[in-house]
Amino acid sequence: METSNVIVSSRIRLARNLKNLPFTHKFKDAKDADEVISIAEKAFNKINAFSLYKMKDADEIKRIALVEKHLISKELAANTVNGALMLSADESTAVMLNEEDHFRIQSIKRGFALDEAYADAHKLDIALASTAMLAYSDTYGYLTACPSNVGTGLRASVMLFLPALTATNSISSVIVAVQKMGLTVRGIFGEGSKADGCMYQLSNQISLGITEEEILESVKSVAKTIEKSELEARQLLLNRQGVALKDKLSRSYGILKTAYVMSSKELRELVTNVKLAVSLNILDVDEKLIDEISTDCQPANITLIAGRNMNDYERDVMRAKYIREKLN
Amino acid sequence: METSNVIVSSRIRLARNLKNLPFTHKFKDAKDADEVISIAEKAFNKINAFSLYKMKDADEIKRIALVEKHLISKELAANTVNGALMLSADESTAVMLNEEDHFRIQSIKRGFALDEAYADAHKLDIALASTAMLAYSDTYGYLTACPSNVGTGLRASVMLFLPALTATNSISSVIVAVQKMGLTVRGIFGEGSKADGCMYQLSNQISLGITEEEILESVKSVAKTIEKSELEARQLLLNRQGVALKDKLSRSYGILKTAYVMSSKELRELVTNVKLAVSLNILDVDEKLIDEISTDCQPANITLIAGRNMNDYERDVMRAKYIREKLN
Repeated sequence: METSNVIVSSRIRLARNLKNLPFTHKFKDAKDADEVISIAEKAFNKINAFSLYKMKDADEIKRIALVEKHLISKELAANTVNGALMLSADESTAVMLNEEDHFRIQSIKRGFALDEAYADAHKLDIALASTAMLAYSDTYGYLTACPSNVGTGLRASVMLFLPALTATNSISSVIVAVQKMGLTVRGIFGEGSKADGCMYQLSNQISLGITEEEILESVKSVAKTIEKSELEARQLLLNRQGVALKDKLSRSYGILKTAYVMSSKELRELVTNVKLAVSLNILDVDEKLIDEISTDCQPANITLIAGRNMNDYERDVMRAKYIREKLN
Repeated sequence: METSNVIVSSRIRLARNLKNLPFTHKFKDAKDADEVISIAEKAFNKINAFSLYKMKDADEIKRIALVEKHLISKELAANTVNGALMLSADESTAVMLNEEDHFRIQSIKRGFALDEAYADAHKLDIALASTAMLAYSDTYGYLTACPSNVGTGLRASVMLFLPALTATNSISSVIVAVQKMGLTVRGIFGEGSKADGCMYQLSNQISLGITEEEILESVKSVAKTIEKSELEARQLLLNRQGVALKDKLSRSYGILKTAYVMSSKELRELVTNVKLAVSLNILDVDEKLIDEISTDCQPANITLIAGRNMNDYERDVMRAKYIREKLN
């Protein structure tokens, strides 16, 4: 069987709130927000060396770059009053502060590693619980600003790369099947459009009346099922299209290596093709490098790399230059 | 100034006939044709070691492959009764036998080298004249089957690569200007269509009442003028289109290196772009290799290389494979 690059990454998010403080949207003054930050620093720095970024101190490009990397939400990026982020050096652990909930602990791992991600997030959770009193109900579990997160406060998700299910139009039936199991699948770049990266996030929808283990097991098991379908769909594509598919995917790599102008949208298409080619043994390319390029070349991230503001066209030229240098 | 690859090759053709034999289309029997071949072998092998190919002994693919390489005419390839070719090992000298005229001596040189090509052809001409009596009139000069070749029997031509004049739609005014000077320009692959290789042949139209030196001088001088216009048009294109042009040309090379299916037509377009890119210092690629690929990948030549008959699609796949192997 070909290399499976279907499960791109695994992510755990825990929503937590302080017992003796109103929810974020009910804060009375800046002192409430500062208390959250101060408790977070005290608790989490026991576990890891985190950097603290206050949204009010970060310029817009930097904040959008963090959104592009899925390290913070758009909502946190926009909260330049009291939003903050604690980020580990390798960016695998990120805690959003004063977002919808006081604390949104997140752990992200490459590949299929939900248990490992959960273990990391759990360590931070323990540290937090030993530092401050958390909003917790014996009946409901953890209390959160939005009822959908009450209970475990846990969202377990995997990022899935599904080019073949997308190309064969099977993705909608996958989405329906997954919803019946209390999970949800959504496109990362604009809901499941073919051209756009073929990246999907599978996650649990329910966090109440169910244990952490049950949530993890259900996401893991559905992820494996979808992975199997995707791999079958890839073989089907290859059998059906053969050389024509090879030609299309291989040319994408040729273009990626030689272009002088590259839009975000075209890059996503080419990256999708190259990653599919790698998994089908059509191309021998370092997929980690391709993923890195894909992340770095998003509009705000490439602007940070360039170190100067650019118009759209200049950014497309800069993006192409960056890709050429990385690949040649 | 950028590297000039405008004048691709230089070619001399001398039309000669035996005095004591009817013109080819008036041959009485095979003996006439055999006499031409026998005299040719006697005369030309004094100068060079030639291989003799009789059209009746060569299969169709081999004959078409010679046409594709511009070594013989379509007419000679079709003359499987008595047509023959004498070819030097490096393919720079070729004599068609029993074509429209008994002898069509041709010398082909890479680049701008009409004088050298003429010197080579002239040696064969001397050898021929010292071996047999040629049809010659003191009034008209050499006598030929078609009146247009009477006189010197000389056609001097250069192959011109004119992508920028083609792209800027200036080629038609070049053609008109050239015609006023008694020369002619025609597209090599289908009269001047943009997509098709941008290769043109410039040659003299008149060979009567004019000396060999005058013909050579006039073709050389017009070739240099057209070269200058082409180089100016390239700079204009680059100044006008800048990065967009770079992007298009560079991507062409990426596609050439990675495709799994490649038609003749697409290859010609990509080769045109890559050669233009080399001349504008956008790409650092061995242009000789590109030209070699371009020649080898024509339908009959690639079939000879594959060593088996193929349908169109198989040939497109074989062509792409051959290109990938040559370039990677």
